[in-house]
Amino acid sequence: MKLLVTGFAPFNGETVNPSYQIVQRLPDKIGGAEVIRLELPVEFGHAGRLLAREVERVKPVLVLCLGQAGGRTGISLEQVGINLREASIPDNAGIQPSGEPVVPGGPAAYFTTLPIKRMCARIRAMGIPASISYSAGTYVCNDLLYFLLDELEKRHPGIRGGFIHVPYSPEQAAGKAVPPASLAVSLAASGIQAALEEALLPDGKGEEIPPQGALD
Amino acid sequence: MKLLVTGFAPFNGETVNPSYQIVQRLPDKIGGAEVIRLELPVEFGHAGRLLAREVERVKPVLVLCLGQAGGRTGISLEQVGINLREASIPDNAGIQPSGEPVVPGGPAAYFTTLPIKRMCARIRAMGIPASISYSAGTYVCNDLLYFLLDELEKRHPGIRGGFIHVPYSPEQAAGKAVPPASLAVSLAASGIQAALEEALLPDGKGEEIPPQGALD
Amino acid sequence: MKLLVTGFAPFNGETVNPSYQIVQRLPDKIGGAEVIRLELPVEFGHAGRLLAREVERVKPVLVLCLGQAGGRTGISLEQVGINLREASIPDNAGIQPSGEPVVPGGPAAYFTTLPIKRMCARIRAMGIPASISYSAGTYVCNDLLYFLLDELEKRHPGIRGGFIHVPYSPEQAAGKAVPPASLAVSLAASGIQAALEEALLPDGKGEEIPPQGALD
Amino acid sequence: MKLLVTGFAPFNGETVNPSYQIVQRLPDKIGGAEVIRLELPVEFGHAGRLLAREVERVKPVLVLCLGQAGGRTGISLEQVGINLREASIPDNAGIQPSGEPVVPGGPAAYFTTLPIKRMCARIRAMGIPASISYSAGTYVCNDLLYFLLDELEKRHPGIRGGFIHVPYSPEQAAGKAVPPASLAVSLAASGIQAALEEALLPDGKGEEIPPQGALD
Repeated sequence: MKLLVTGFAPFNGETVNPSYQIVQRLPDKIGGAEVIRLELPVEFGHAGRLLAREVERVKPVLVLCLGQAGGRTGISLEQVGINLREASIPDNAGIQPSGEPVVPGGPAAYFTTLPIKRMCARIRAMGIPASISYSAGTYVCNDLLYFLLDELEKRHPGIRGGFIHVPYSPEQAAGKAVPPASLAVSLAASGIQAALEEALLPDGKGEEIPPQGALD
Repeated sequence: MKLLVTGFAPFNGETVNPSYQIVQRLPDKIGGAEVIRLELPVEFGHAGRLLAREVERVKPVLVLCLGQAGGRTGISLEQVGINLREASIPDNAGIQPSGEPVVPGGPAAYFTTLPIKRMCARIRAMGIPASISYSAGTYVCNDLLYFLLDELEKRHPGIRGGFIHVPYSPEQAAGKAVPPASLAVSLAASGIQAALEEALLPDGKGEEIPPQGALD
Repeated sequence: MKLLVTGFAPFNGETVNPSYQIVQRLPDKIGGAEVIRLELPVEFGHAGRLLAREVERVKPVLVLCLGQAGGRTGISLEQVGINLREASIPDNAGIQPSGEPVVPGGPAAYFTTLPIKRMCARIRAMGIPASISYSAGTYVCNDLLYFLLDELEKRHPGIRGGFIHVPYSPEQAAGKAVPPASLAVSLAASGIQAALEEALLPDGKGEEIPPQGALD
Repeated sequence: MKLLVTGFAPFNGETVNPSYQIVQRLPDKIGGAEVIRLELPVEFGHAGRLLAREVERVKPVLVLCLGQAGGRTGISLEQVGINLREASIPDNAGIQPSGEPVVPGGPAAYFTTLPIKRMCARIRAMGIPASISYSAGTYVCNDLLYFLLDELEKRHPGIRGGFIHVPYSPEQAAGKAVPPASLAVSLAASGIQAALEEALLPDGKGEEIPPQGALD
């Protein structure tokens, strides 16, 4: 039994990306499953194609992608990926799409197939800040999430998938004059490990958090 | 030719809701179309059913729903409604759903069918703060947006629909010890009027704003 | 009886400064006193010297300086000016002091001599967002506030003085991709007018707001 | 040679206070000086009097007080304490002063006598988020800072003193539905230790950070 866990390369002028630093810190086995690691480029489309190839090769029971979301205050479990590319800066290949779909002709969105409410509750029970997010943005992170969920639905219906955003690392925040929120990579990795353990439990086990949706 | 424009009743302890105050300030005719106004209750499901009935009766060319999103800094044009109810407080009927779909069996999400990028650019060109939003939350606003788009897709494919969130009014913000961001109702109404004029123009007319998606 | 009210010129790439736009909108008489207007340059030291000269010439009963504080959500009445210059960007004369006093040998700080709690309560009672602020920053606004209070203490002990920060105008916020909070210039001007009326009342009149200090 | 380092007891419904957790994690010797620890009650006046007694007893070369500032994103080195009590909630003794001085007849403010710019640069060089703050609020933290600096100025002019605010711990943030920013206690303690080492160096040693004052 295998888990495929991915992080991204650095982007937007940063020299590190905590998402892959976290992946590197995960143990080799979680909940009895082998952890397979993959670092993905911050490139629209390309990241998803590399991931799809690895899913095909590894045949994991579960795929979890991680990405950096500067400014967020805790671990952010994404509910939904949308079929839209809207980049406010170019990706690492210099591409800056606007108003394009991730998958032409695909549905507007997919929901994650991971039990994110239980995973969130488990992380918080460890004393690590976490919440559910209802937007993964419209940059490469959302691109990867939507592409993954589309791929799993169409070709691997038995494999569950999802995406988690992580804050800046303290090291990144320390380099900015007005420091944004951050989370230690070691803490984030502990939280992600526990979330993966939780995701491997059968449904009905584990505690759910009370609803926390925004009042919009 | 008719436009159906809705706002909500006050909720969460507020005595006013700027969304319907704005609706009341709109002129009776916009872009040659007659403006039909409707105030909706902050109640899961019920708001959508009342709206659907009015759409059936009025047969508008376009439906725009407005709602209050405390904490936002400008007019927020929503890209997407998702098929999920997750209420952090009860609605005005005392119902607090969690983890339920808006429409059982419906797709994960619908995109708005309004030209929100052109509408946003038009509002900003008037000197009124506006941006595209990629999450309408998981409370009654999102409930109404998803329900409306589902209804239009299934029963009225020729009618376009969408949702715009507005900040607190200054009056609401003034009542809080630490004032949140606000926008004058008169300014917001001018922006909404212009956005509706823009929405009635044929596609290809009007300026688009450059991409502004978040770097998540 | 005269009131001296100042605003600043535009700075930091902006083409307007709402602080002086507000000054221009004030009526010629407030609470029976004549309003004298002055636009000041965003220049360390120079702004204060020009103000001191005008105070000498006009002999007002009260001096109120206004300045723009991008990002604030309401009218911000400043409690204190500190004897420190710490500029994160150059002023409009290209000077960027760091770690310098405003007045060499002066005390660490002066408190405003205006009844800002009553003034704040009066603004909020009009439905306009306002709060007390305990830091005017370390840029030209604080420089002017400290210099003014030092000058009044030493040379014009009968003249009261203070400083109020105002948010961006909606026009300024609309020019930014992620709009910051803003306040309509007309609303801000109504609030400032009422605050000046309140300041002219004898102490003991008027309502105070309950305490709202931060929990730091 | 001794350093006196204080933290506060929990308040405002929290069960821990990271400020004293950090104090407990400091080594017994820093920069050749012995570390003396003191936990202070969150009580106006009382905290300061207990601190003054300990200063008298210990005769440290330096006093550093720590306090929790929920919502801040990094270690916050305070520049100034002001002579004002303005409590938005009661302290742990049930007292909620408003508009009172810390020291009747005292000056409006004191600047810290610690080299906070060098200390801040040192913390940031370790990859830990930090910044200078120009307001310690108007609650018990500011009360203690002002009282300390007044006491040192009047009775112990050779002893230097200051105050540093720390964010919530991750454990605290995890307990809230919308997690605020946080900083791991172990990281914060490393930063505070380095800051104390830096403070013991003679002036002129060590790097300063570039100015970072707000544009207000």
